[in-house]
Amino acid sequence: MSYDRLHALGKELQLVSDAGALLSWDQEVLMPGKGVGYRAEQMAWFSGYLHERLTSPEVGDWIALAEGDAESASDPFAEANLREWRRQYTRATCLPKRLVEVFAESSALAKAAWAEARQKSDFTLFAPHLEKLVSLSREHAECWGYEEHLYDALLDQYEQGSSTRRLIDTLGALRESLLPVVLEATAQTPFDRKKFIAHYPREKQEAFNREVAESIGFDFGAGRIDTAVHPFCSGMAPYDTRLTTRYDESNFLSSLFGVLHEAGHGLYEQGLERERRGEPVGAAVSLGVHESQSRLWENHVGRSRAFWEKWLPRAAEYFPNLASLTVDEIDEAVNQAALSPIRVESDEVTYDLHILLRFEMEREIFAGNLAIKDVPAEWNSRFESLFGLKVESDAQGCLQDIHWSIGIFGYFPTYSLGNINAAHLVAAARRQDSVLAAQMDRADYSGLLAWMKTRIHRPGSLYLPDELVTRAAGSPATADALVEHLRSRYLRRRRG
Amino acid sequence: MSYDRLHALGKELQLVSDAGALLSWDQEVLMPGKGVGYRAEQMAWFSGYLHERLTSPEVGDWIALAEGDAESASDPFAEANLREWRRQYTRATCLPKRLVEVFAESSALAKAAWAEARQKSDFTLFAPHLEKLVSLSREHAECWGYEEHLYDALLDQYEQGSSTRRLIDTLGALRESLLPVVLEATAQTPFDRKKFIAHYPREKQEAFNREVAESIGFDFGAGRIDTAVHPFCSGMAPYDTRLTTRYDESNFLSSLFGVLHEAGHGLYEQGLERERRGEPVGAAVSLGVHESQSRLWENHVGRSRAFWEKWLPRAAEYFPNLASLTVDEIDEAVNQAALSPIRVESDEVTYDLHILLRFEMEREIFAGNLAIKDVPAEWNSRFESLFGLKVESDAQGCLQDIHWSIGIFGYFPTYSLGNINAAHLVAAARRQDSVLAAQMDRADYSGLLAWMKTRIHRPGSLYLPDELVTRAAGSPATADALVEHLRSRYLRRRRG
Repeated sequence: MSYDRLHALGKELQLVSDAGALLSWDQEVLMPGKGVGYRAEQMAWFSGYLHERLTSPEVGDWIALAEGDAESASDPFAEANLREWRRQYTRATCLPKRLVEVFAESSALAKAAWAEARQKSDFTLFAPHLEKLVSLSREHAECWGYEEHLYDALLDQYEQGSSTRRLIDTLGALRESLLPVVLEATAQTPFDRKKFIAHYPREKQEAFNREVAESIGFDFGAGRIDTAVHPFCSGMAPYDTRLTTRYDESNFLSSLFGVLHEAGHGLYEQGLERERRGEPVGAAVSLGVHESQSRLWENHVGRSRAFWEKWLPRAAEYFPNLASLTVDEIDEAVNQAALSPIRVESDEVTYDLHILLRFEMEREIFAGNLAIKDVPAEWNSRFESLFGLKVESDAQGCLQDIHWSIGIFGYFPTYSLGNINAAHLVAAARRQDSVLAAQMDRADYSGLLAWMKTRIHRPGSLYLPDELVTRAAGSPATADALVEHLRSRYLRRRRG
Repeated sequence: MSYDRLHALGKELQLVSDAGALLSWDQEVLMPGKGVGYRAEQMAWFSGYLHERLTSPEVGDWIALAEGDAESASDPFAEANLREWRRQYTRATCLPKRLVEVFAESSALAKAAWAEARQKSDFTLFAPHLEKLVSLSREHAECWGYEEHLYDALLDQYEQGSSTRRLIDTLGALRESLLPVVLEATAQTPFDRKKFIAHYPREKQEAFNREVAESIGFDFGAGRIDTAVHPFCSGMAPYDTRLTTRYDESNFLSSLFGVLHEAGHGLYEQGLERERRGEPVGAAVSLGVHESQSRLWENHVGRSRAFWEKWLPRAAEYFPNLASLTVDEIDEAVNQAALSPIRVESDEVTYDLHILLRFEMEREIFAGNLAIKDVPAEWNSRFESLFGLKVESDAQGCLQDIHWSIGIFGYFPTYSLGNINAAHLVAAARRQDSVLAAQMDRADYSGLLAWMKTRIHRPGSLYLPDELVTRAAGSPATADALVEHLRSRYLRRRRG
């Protein structure tokens, strides 16, 4: 009875929250500029309403009653739902109202200060705001609770069950194995891009991207692709998953890889159990698992030789200048490594070094070992030791990302978890199923998608992320498969 | 105090209702096909939530208290708000829940039956559903109350303050004066459309329409134009007004007049007092006034000779085949009259005859003078006497419109009120302001828009529709200006 009430409430609040998701999507994609103020008021209404309904005292009573009910305990889905409802309720009710308000105000101010600081490359403008957000995030962590490190509570927001200790192990191992690969990969002669110089009309890119997305299984009867400045995927309803990308008419690869990435997120959303929408188990489990799906299609599929053996001839029908290109050449072009100070411009092989840097910085800050005023110097010194390059300005260094400016700490590691999970899952799928592996080698991904649907998408949040990946792959995720993947992809030219 | 509570509630519910408007817009314009079921659940949530908040007993108490408060009575805006809150509350609370539910169910069934009946041109399939909806609409009217005719209560839903008696006067006069104009206009030799035969690429139509819409004052910083099967305008937020149109690549005039029509609605929405959003006085007053604004830009502006003197050369830059066209020719082309059995395909001069027919049919039905089984025969006989044509099938006759199939009775007359108001307002504006008239004659509509903004848009719902138009024009609307307008437009070729 209490369980049924929670279930009905969850379904209702999901409907409302999904309406808010459309408003949010629309703001990024279509909304006329002057609409922004009113839209913000609308979004605030949705947050307030959902919070109020979720935190009403009767909800706490229902959860307690349902937890004591033997029937719920015998159904693993009900058990997982209760685990998540308890977590949502506790996290929503444990923060003092004052803290929520001060945080909202401080992060709005910090974001504006960060934008100015980055533009002027002057960290001192941002420092007091960062100080404040770190201090407020400590208060959050104290409310939420943690076992070993305060930073664990922050990590747990984005990746339930992850911990500083385990991340140090996983990412530390990645660091050691990755550094020599990066050194070698970035030392190779850069690919000559002359053959790619052409005009790639946007409409043709759209048509090609759509064809590729459809071929890997994205259902356009239950989804769309639109244009946005900052590409994203919104799974806003059980049969409505929307991807966005942006177009560079001098480089068709940019929107294509963007679409493969977002379509990976989209396939996950489309693969969730639709009739469980509104139950916690019906939702995606974590950022690190979500990112594994996007990276999988972007990197393991989209940058593979097999993919281009199939798709280069078709691409050349859309873009005739590509007709003179060999598969070797496009393979080389899409797998170039280069050292860059900027995370979002980095390639598959150097990307995780950027994440390692941020993970280490956040850890030191929240462990109390690094004062905010020392952030730029520390960033620059760590960057140089990882990349062998000097940081030229804070704008290109510790001010480059938006995350800290809006009080998001503990999020960065999920990017690397995504890469690690993707490689671990693909390797396991290929190992478990030789038919699937043979299909992939001729650019048929139906087996791969079916494998992910069964083992990753459909379970939703039935298991915590680690357990989900371990069950799917047959072993816990380590950095090994990722390193092996990067090694074979980036070092083969030297070896060949 | 009570007034302030109502004010705050109105603002809050407007935010929510405007979110629902985005969902509804999105469903018509973008939503993937499979999203329809879930979106329907979301829309039902919005209706339910808004109804529940609006009809809570404390709202009735606040209204009663505020009505007794002298302060509110001294402010005409507050007085108008109270008048509308009272009306909204009464209408929302007076219907028994059973009636609302039965009506929702019956109209869903009736719509499906109508679609089949129209497709098979078999009225008997629709008749029992129409019978039911008419009977339920009578129950609604009895709940809402009326003074003279039951049909008044239905009219009042869409055009507050209108009555059967007054419509008989106005539309009756229109009928008498219009018939000879129609006879003469439709007897003229049809224009030879050979010179228009060309391919009009959609992107060029979009660009041209946008240029025209911008030039008449539509603010694209606070609005958009998109594509929809059934064009409409949604004023979904104070700074977010969205028009839709559809494209026929063999006829650029179809989307252009569509955009002018919807932009007329849009200019009204953009002209409302934005800071009064959420107060009843901040909203558009009625369908008959809304339609006056769309008809004004579509017909009085878009089909005028001055408009084409300015825009034909520009159109010919987008569509080179038009370069050989004279202003006389396009003027003639956009002002062709022809007798058609179908309302939505009819021209400016015959349109109101279609409305007259429907108004008379509805009146007879609700007066109890016409049995549902006799509707087709009555329709056909009345159509023949108005148009001098036989109706070939019910699909082309009494089954052509969707309105009755979803239980909308009393709506049709607002289309003619729109035409009457448009002509009456334009004539008054030109008479009152010779500068404005001279501007219009050289296709400068800034004065016309400013006049409408001040007298029609900004007052919102401060006055009832009749008073608003009377105040703006200096006299109550009659059919005279419309007849004079049509006479001078459609008979000049014969005279010239």
